[in-house]
Amino acid sequence: MTKKIGGRTLKLATPVSIIASASVVGKKEGEGPLKYCFDFISEDSYFGEETWEKAESHMLKQCFTLCCNKAQMAPSGLDFVFSGDLLNQCVSSAFAMKDSALPYFGLYGACSTMAESLALAAMTIDGGFGETACALTGSHFCSAERQYRFPLEYGGQRPPTAQWTVTGAGAAIVSATGEGPFITHITPGIIVDAGLKDANNMGAAMAPAAYETIKAHFADTGRDLNYYDAVFTGDLGAVGHDILQKLFQDDGIEMGPRYMDCGVLMFDLNTQDVHCGGSGCGCCASVLCGHILKGFAKGTWSKVLVAATGALMSPLSCQQGGSIPGICHAVAIERQW
Amino acid sequence: MTKKIGGRTLKLATPVSIIASASVVGKKEGEGPLKYCFDFISEDSYFGEETWEKAESHMLKQCFTLCCNKAQMAPSGLDFVFSGDLLNQCVSSAFAMKDSALPYFGLYGACSTMAESLALAAMTIDGGFGETACALTGSHFCSAERQYRFPLEYGGQRPPTAQWTVTGAGAAIVSATGEGPFITHITPGIIVDAGLKDANNMGAAMAPAAYETIKAHFADTGRDLNYYDAVFTGDLGAVGHDILQKLFQDDGIEMGPRYMDCGVLMFDLNTQDVHCGGSGCGCCASVLCGHILKGFAKGTWSKVLVAATGALMSPLSCQQGGSIPGICHAVAIERQW
Repeated sequence: MTKKIGGRTLKLATPVSIIASASVVGKKEGEGPLKYCFDFISEDSYFGEETWEKAESHMLKQCFTLCCNKAQMAPSGLDFVFSGDLLNQCVSSAFAMKDSALPYFGLYGACSTMAESLALAAMTIDGGFGETACALTGSHFCSAERQYRFPLEYGGQRPPTAQWTVTGAGAAIVSATGEGPFITHITPGIIVDAGLKDANNMGAAMAPAAYETIKAHFADTGRDLNYYDAVFTGDLGAVGHDILQKLFQDDGIEMGPRYMDCGVLMFDLNTQDVHCGGSGCGCCASVLCGHILKGFAKGTWSKVLVAATGALMSPLSCQQGGSIPGICHAVAIERQW
Repeated sequence: MTKKIGGRTLKLATPVSIIASASVVGKKEGEGPLKYCFDFISEDSYFGEETWEKAESHMLKQCFTLCCNKAQMAPSGLDFVFSGDLLNQCVSSAFAMKDSALPYFGLYGACSTMAESLALAAMTIDGGFGETACALTGSHFCSAERQYRFPLEYGGQRPPTAQWTVTGAGAAIVSATGEGPFITHITPGIIVDAGLKDANNMGAAMAPAAYETIKAHFADTGRDLNYYDAVFTGDLGAVGHDILQKLFQDDGIEMGPRYMDCGVLMFDLNTQDVHCGGSGCGCCASVLCGHILKGFAKGTWSKVLVAATGALMSPLSCQQGGSIPGICHAVAIERQW
């Protein structure tokens, strides 16, 4: 009766289709290698608002509206919204959705939120609780910098292992009806604490969680890397990407070019001065809702695994000497049900 | 096929039983009218840790362990944990569960988290994704004060409408098998923004959300106040409690003594110097997992509606002139399936 197969992977019993997705990003993201795939690129980091926090909320709302438009449905037609973000008390999500009058489940999954929200949205539809649900998340470089690190005006320096919080949002609507692509399997994350404490090296802190979840997904499903046309991690960046490859190499598995990281894809690491690449909820969100899902439409791939990664620390937990626990939720998306 | 009845209320299709619950609170809570019902009262606000944030995490972990013990199951037997808290980036939950190796869905529902987590846990079990899930949340007066308001050492004054963040945690395990009480209906919250901006009067900000959700629950189910032996709001406090009564009076409905608020129940408002009563994720959590569920065991009631309330603001959103949007998730708990 249970949809849990193997250790902890869930296999949906009914086709849950991604019927629409939308992505909105900032100027810098719109100058990167993926600029072709975003629905809207804002030249204004304030998105017309007075503060960067309000800008982040504006961006989320804009992305949500775009997604509903692409699904050709009124927002009021949705049964649920699952949303979260990086700001303290997740205010950018709450303020984005505060006038929607939609059943709202607030999440905190750090940068794994796109996969967490998509997983819970799909489970809710598969569970028979409604027909459609939206997964929504994003992040903003300027609000994240001043919350997590320093005010931008301070001009702080960043070490080479640091990543660049993506200004971007992604929204996806899943439905009990639709032509696909379909969410077929979900491997929810467990928290993995490798004991790392360098808040300027999140990739290293999150890579063990990505390794654990992807390995569990393969073990539970009997699939391997070759089953998928592509496997994406959320925002490990160049350092975390290499650590993950190394962890699999230690098991005798070469991940090869099928394995990509959204944080590495987002920017040109040689020319855009982002050090190790993109991070933030908006990284995986905008790459999934832009590049990855457009790749299905174009026929680039038919089976992908999206393994979004999150670091479950806060500035205060780091100041108090805490380690940086990581989590990774994985969602398998396939053209055929 | 859908389990959605009426407007947005969900009716579970299979019996999801609350097989165990546990509550852990601080000294002040243990001196209040509900002292009989808590599983553990800590005399030490630090719970043996170095900081109040670590204490909060310790309390959550202790409560989780107690709950597993009461369910006579190893923590590893759980299929999912749904958890969240008030601290920035929800670190007390993440650190409490970081060594559990359990599938973890992080939530942010502010003080509504107990009902949000219980709702999603129940939906996940009803949806066939596993056999057991734990809903866990809490809050700590000292960590909340310095994050939201002032360091305690500052000795700041509080206006009469202010509430007292409960030092407390609650955990409940739901299962596909068990003797009840059962979660029968869920009315997920929508965000309601009444435009209020006084961060020292959260009860007033959240009462409209409670009104909206309870009214929706009655309309969707065809039930009314008389159906339930008791209806509990999460943490409206005395001011919010009275506002909610007034909102229903305007509809010609007298809520009467069946309606209670966890924040009012938690403390003796005349003698414990908490102004309007308790608040925080731990308020509804410890009252539900202590008083309310023990009331089922004692035969005090057979049908209750728990309507946990949350204020989706942050100190920064208030500083930027934002309003205080509220949300209320409601869960119906009944002795008979």
